[in-house]
Amino acid sequence: MTPQNPPSPVFAAPSASKTELEEGTLFTPKFDAQGLIVCITTEASTGTILMVAYMNEQALQLSLRTGIAHYWSRSRGELWRKGDTSGQTQHILEISTDCDQDAILLKVRVDGDGKACHTGRKSCFYRKVIVSDQGYHLIA
Amino acid sequence: MTPQNPPSPVFAAPSASKTELEEGTLFTPKFDAQGLIVCITTEASTGTILMVAYMNEQALQLSLRTGIAHYWSRSRGELWRKGDTSGQTQHILEISTDCDQDAILLKVRVDGDGKACHTGRKSCFYRKVIVSDQGYHLIA
Repeated sequence: MTPQNPPSPVFAAPSASKTELEEGTLFTPKFDAQGLIVCITTEASTGTILMVAYMNEQALQLSLRTGIAHYWSRSRGELWRKGDTSGQTQHILEISTDCDQDAILLKVRVDGDGKACHTGRKSCFYRKVIVSDQGYHLIA
Repeated sequence: MTPQNPPSPVFAAPSASKTELEEGTLFTPKFDAQGLIVCITTEASTGTILMVAYMNEQALQLSLRTGIAHYWSRSRGELWRKGDTSGQTQHILEISTDCDQDAILLKVRVDGDGKACHTGRKSCFYRKVIVSDQGYHLIA
């Protein structure tokens, strides 16, 4: 399926009420000044954190409506249906949001080789940070 | 331990080389235009995603140097050592970064009641998003 125009209805604006945001039943995602919301994507079967990416309104709507993860590529400046070139399509099993509705969490099943990182790793988080007198370094 | 001034050395600037960023051993976190980097915090023992928050350079340095999670509170505009008022101090067992070094992942052990969300839940992600003809709603 190719990207399409955002389906209606669009998202309602976030409430000014903290209680409504945190305890209400209306999904009112809060996009940042660039129109983006951060998204953490995990492998549903293992809980592995695969990647962190961003969605604009269209990407979030398409993800919800189609069940396939769509993102906004900040580097390319375009809508991005993950897997279109790699085969690593992400089927969304669950989508949730946090207390103030400014972050998205996806649990997905990944097609193809099951990986998510463009470097060829399964997860983008393949390096630990270590600190020493010499500074801050990374180890695999 | 109370917050302190950022220790030296500061972080090196991100390399212009994609290979260096993705395969190198130097930690060069990429902060956004607001000087922040997104951080996903998980409970080490279960893998549960507890929260998403942001760090500025000082918060990231203090997290690395002290082993206690520090964040930058965007709503309060101040450095925030999680747990100082709630007792939910986060002890960092592992810190990692992603391929392009613009996201941080913490695995933590939480003091006190083990929770992370200010609403009283363990995790900030306590609601699923559902879509219907009536729009987008949340269920617990």
